[in-house]
Amino acid sequence: MNLLLLEAADFVAADRVVLRDRRLTHLHEVHRAEAGECLRVGLLGGQMGQGQLLRLDATEAELKIELQQTPPAKLPVTLLLALPRPKMLRRVLQTVASMGVPKLVLLNSYRVEKSFWQTPFLEPQAIREQLLLGLEQARDTVLPEVIIEKRFKPFVEDRLPQLVAGTRGLVGHPGDYPACPRALSEPVTLAIGPEGGWIPYEVEKLTEAGLQPVQLGDRILRVETAVSALLARLF
Amino acid sequence: MNLLLLEAADFVAADRVVLRDRRLTHLHEVHRAEAGECLRVGLLGGQMGQGQLLRLDATEAELKIELQQTPPAKLPVTLLLALPRPKMLRRVLQTVASMGVPKLVLLNSYRVEKSFWQTPFLEPQAIREQLLLGLEQARDTVLPEVIIEKRFKPFVEDRLPQLVAGTRGLVGHPGDYPACPRALSEPVTLAIGPEGGWIPYEVEKLTEAGLQPVQLGDRILRVETAVSALLARLF
Repeated sequence: MNLLLLEAADFVAADRVVLRDRRLTHLHEVHRAEAGECLRVGLLGGQMGQGQLLRLDATEAELKIELQQTPPAKLPVTLLLALPRPKMLRRVLQTVASMGVPKLVLLNSYRVEKSFWQTPFLEPQAIREQLLLGLEQARDTVLPEVIIEKRFKPFVEDRLPQLVAGTRGLVGHPGDYPACPRALSEPVTLAIGPEGGWIPYEVEKLTEAGLQPVQLGDRILRVETAVSALLARLF
Repeated sequence: MNLLLLEAADFVAADRVVLRDRRLTHLHEVHRAEAGECLRVGLLGGQMGQGQLLRLDATEAELKIELQQTPPAKLPVTLLLALPRPKMLRRVLQTVASMGVPKLVLLNSYRVEKSFWQTPFLEPQAIREQLLLGLEQARDTVLPEVIIEKRFKPFVEDRLPQLVAGTRGLVGHPGDYPACPRALSEPVTLAIGPEGGWIPYEVEKLTEAGLQPVQLGDRILRVETAVSALLARLF
């Protein structure tokens, strides 16, 4: 963790927090912190700054907090992702949060196995946990919004056109399509398919909703790799 | 697996292979293949093409092979990577192979924990296994070369300058450096640091060897994410 994320409930005074949970364990076991040290901290949804460790024992850590720094800018992107397999989902959520995606839609697709929708990793608390890990990694304080769309057609027909309006719509898909553009400054709506890719019907529906198919070359990348590669190329 | 990788030992005739190992299991359990089906195949180190499944039972699969397609081009890059933690190493090896890196140097750094060098995942057979998974994912047949350098200074002083010669040398490092360049066509030597980054002495030595520090923004990315993001941006 490159940033110690604080929540309102941690504050015992305007500039003091007391921590008792996994963050305390992390301070002991990974950070091997000692009283007096200064750590990077951030208030979830708020500013970032410094925390001086006043006290650290087996049950509590107390820090004096100063927050004066704005978190890093988000990317101007809405990411639509065919729901990945549960293990991949957890990592992708971290990647999405760490790269600064502000809005993620997890979407059904023909090639998403039905069982993937049963995973406990889709519970709001589990999603939040992975997003927090991504924020701590990247030094950001603002949680991405995650929207779950279990039905492809109603989402793509009824809600996607509004999301795409005013943005450049792109769908990553291998094939004889233009290469994915680079270094955009305009807002983008980007759709990335499941392992095995979108089926032709889905590409057609996404195109009708305003997304243009683009490709990244002959190599088929894992979803997680495709997410970071496409975002790094686009912005 | 998007490509069934074959080795010389699998061939029972010029155009016939028999498979009995994890690939057989994969054909049954993941691919749920049936006799008559055509599969994408590739000869390790050679060409790619089609394999028609002549026979598939509990102990063997036999395929009729036709190879006529060149594997995808590699990226013009040598990647120097501070040795990641074992779990990350396995995924990074897959990422490196799937993105088309032809040469990877795993390097020591001050912030690489000594225990990381003891992992069985550094055994040649374990490295090869992860690289094969990356090739199967991306549909490539050519294994990257992996070089292990357990001592930073002798490598950077004595061997790195020759590797960098004739290439654009870059070292990813957060800070007040130029932004990482985009869409290069020249060959590149790229160094990516450990979790926590290179120490100043290391950046200095890498710079002396011909690598220019470049940054990717304020966000600190996991090594695996940084690898795919930097490669996607550079090429």
